[in-house]
Amino acid sequence: MPLSRKPIRANAFYAQSGGVTSVINASACGVIETARMHKLRIAKVYAGKNGIIGALREELIDTSKDTKKSISALRHTPSGAFGSCRYKLKGIDENRAEYERLIEVFKAHNIRYFFYNGGGDSMDTAHKISQISEIMDYPITCIGIPKTVDNDLPITDNCPGFPSVAKYVAVSVLEAGFDVASMCESSTKVFVMEVMGRHAGWIAAAGGLASEEEGEAPHIILFPEIAFDKDKFLKKVNATVKKYGYCVIVVSEGAAYKDGTFLAESGTVDAFGHKQLGGVAPVVAQMIKDEYGYKYHWAVADYLQRAARHIASAVDVEQAYALGKAAVEFALKGNNATMPVIIRKATKKYSWTIGEARLEDVANVEKMMPRKFISKDGFHITEACRNYLQPLIVGEDYPPYKNGLPQYVRLKNVLVEKKLKDYKV
Amino acid sequence: MPLSRKPIRANAFYAQSGGVTSVINASACGVIETARMHKLRIAKVYAGKNGIIGALREELIDTSKDTKKSISALRHTPSGAFGSCRYKLKGIDENRAEYERLIEVFKAHNIRYFFYNGGGDSMDTAHKISQISEIMDYPITCIGIPKTVDNDLPITDNCPGFPSVAKYVAVSVLEAGFDVASMCESSTKVFVMEVMGRHAGWIAAAGGLASEEEGEAPHIILFPEIAFDKDKFLKKVNATVKKYGYCVIVVSEGAAYKDGTFLAESGTVDAFGHKQLGGVAPVVAQMIKDEYGYKYHWAVADYLQRAARHIASAVDVEQAYALGKAAVEFALKGNNATMPVIIRKATKKYSWTIGEARLEDVANVEKMMPRKFISKDGFHITEACRNYLQPLIVGEDYPPYKNGLPQYVRLKNVLVEKKLKDYKV
Repeated sequence: MPLSRKPIRANAFYAQSGGVTSVINASACGVIETARMHKLRIAKVYAGKNGIIGALREELIDTSKDTKKSISALRHTPSGAFGSCRYKLKGIDENRAEYERLIEVFKAHNIRYFFYNGGGDSMDTAHKISQISEIMDYPITCIGIPKTVDNDLPITDNCPGFPSVAKYVAVSVLEAGFDVASMCESSTKVFVMEVMGRHAGWIAAAGGLASEEEGEAPHIILFPEIAFDKDKFLKKVNATVKKYGYCVIVVSEGAAYKDGTFLAESGTVDAFGHKQLGGVAPVVAQMIKDEYGYKYHWAVADYLQRAARHIASAVDVEQAYALGKAAVEFALKGNNATMPVIIRKATKKYSWTIGEARLEDVANVEKMMPRKFISKDGFHITEACRNYLQPLIVGEDYPPYKNGLPQYVRLKNVLVEKKLKDYKV
Repeated sequence: MPLSRKPIRANAFYAQSGGVTSVINASACGVIETARMHKLRIAKVYAGKNGIIGALREELIDTSKDTKKSISALRHTPSGAFGSCRYKLKGIDENRAEYERLIEVFKAHNIRYFFYNGGGDSMDTAHKISQISEIMDYPITCIGIPKTVDNDLPITDNCPGFPSVAKYVAVSVLEAGFDVASMCESSTKVFVMEVMGRHAGWIAAAGGLASEEEGEAPHIILFPEIAFDKDKFLKKVNATVKKYGYCVIVVSEGAAYKDGTFLAESGTVDAFGHKQLGGVAPVVAQMIKDEYGYKYHWAVADYLQRAARHIASAVDVEQAYALGKAAVEFALKGNNATMPVIIRKATKKYSWTIGEARLEDVANVEKMMPRKFISKDGFHITEACRNYLQPLIVGEDYPPYKNGLPQYVRLKNVLVEKKLKDYKV
């Protein structure tokens, strides 16, 4: 049962956590705009400078110093406007001092609402903070807001950030596929695109959306979930080139051999013997070249994919905003230790609504791709997967442009005056 | 003096050449739509299947078999719709048989107009065909249509294909810069993005448009025109990280040491001793890691950049179409051995018009970045460069979408019945 909190006027703390996305600021926008509509309950929203580290250091950004227009522009601005961090709080027993510091900072600044925007680790942290709030008898309403391009949170139908990466990858593979098809007669025959997803193949799977008919790129997807079989893979590549003239491959950075060795680690060294110089795309491309001599090209999108707000999914932007808004509404209703989630109501004529999950049920659980989403031979997605993914990338939500460039906002990020002694993080 | 041709009703041949772009089909669209408006003069437009190879093999695509709607969709479809190739015809004396074959095919199909859409090499080929036409006394009107992402053709103010790559690179660097800035406190401090341009730094320079104010990404650009000075570079990276917390670098694939060795070649070998596995981005990133230990990420956009029709420059699309249209108009006016070019009329309030250049003046001349476009320290662009580049990326020309994906057209590409014996290419 979510713990209930009495209504009280206080400040809120919002922090962004982990890898940023093209829509995490849309969630921030939802939080701040909704909080501003309830000033009798939420006085100010303070954002953690560089995430939870900002709370520990008492580096609190006063979001009220930014105009309505700037806050509104967060909806179309990628990245983490207040800074984010990869910082996982240890267990309460292991590092109680850190939790006490958080409570001290929250007390000093009359913070009674805690909104934490991140993935599984962050939901674990938010859950722990709700626990310490009990233990230390300082009431804080803790609400998680889901975010992760990896799409690996449980309960929620999908995670904000993922649909936009999915759209970027699908569009990019579609375009590169057209390019390679044009040239394959006399030039490049194999193109390899590396995408994110160290543990789960959701992003790689999204590349599969580009091939709507037999023979269209991508022809092969390499998932982290499927042990890499070099021989089977090479034969499939060759058969594809023979049949269609070219072969486009999407490979997840997490693609690995049966024994768990990442392909990306498999033997790449520079002249000085340093490992891990390259990504997995060049490794796969070279493997094919060595066997068949096909001319190849490869791309590694890296941060470009998760920052690509210019081609964000409209569904994603809408959901990210809605989840931020819902988080504030939950808090104002007195819910605690919960996270708003996306519930899919219909797939064919896609519709969704907001539900609620308990943080303890979300924390540290990874949702993997179901095997039924991957084709029998392990090299592509199934219709079930397509049905799941396709509605998520629908709609474009273009940012405004000036002089040919998107007009992304840089906030003022004015810090609140410190009241406490320095604390080393 | 352009050679003059008498009006005659005949067929036209159009071929795409070299690396494709996101707007070369817009030029094709301009050619075909304009030709269709002059059916009394141009009976049919035949397109070479896979470029000039299609002419040699007598593989001629009858573009009249595709609907008005499909041809119109070429305007928003990246890649080469008829296939392209990298195939440079030798000198007439060296390989007269090849030219004779071309003339034979043109005669057999009553082709009197030759439109060749490509870069410097292709303009050389088009020029040679205009010469053989004289020698063999078979009149062909030869018009080149410029295309190259490298932006290295002379006389024309810019080359179609380049402005869209420039926009893609500027937008991507802007977005990745925002991403890295969010995380640099506790995570990635250095981001390296590799872009195309083996000989000229035009594309790398375009990345510079993303930094509108001091301190904004990219902080460093590595041009092929500037000999790489490792020590100076590393110091600049470190100073940037110290000052701004992070450093974003755009590196041209053609970046090289003073002795001409490409950075990309400098020592990368896989476990089997194979060279050239990776690109230049990982080499540069590793160099920084080795010296300062900064956590890095890198991206290689490769074909994604030249295929990215989803973020094409509206100026580029308009110019590419206009040049295709102008090529047909030139031909109908009786001009020969020329190429339509872009003439910049004004920069501040950007405007342009179509001019004309002689193929012999364009063929095999490479336009490099002027030194005054690169900052004194060699690591960024100057105001002069910004003034040149900036108008080119203005405006978005989004393709139509369905189910979340751009609706790019695949033509029927019906071949004309052969009349001649097979010819081996």
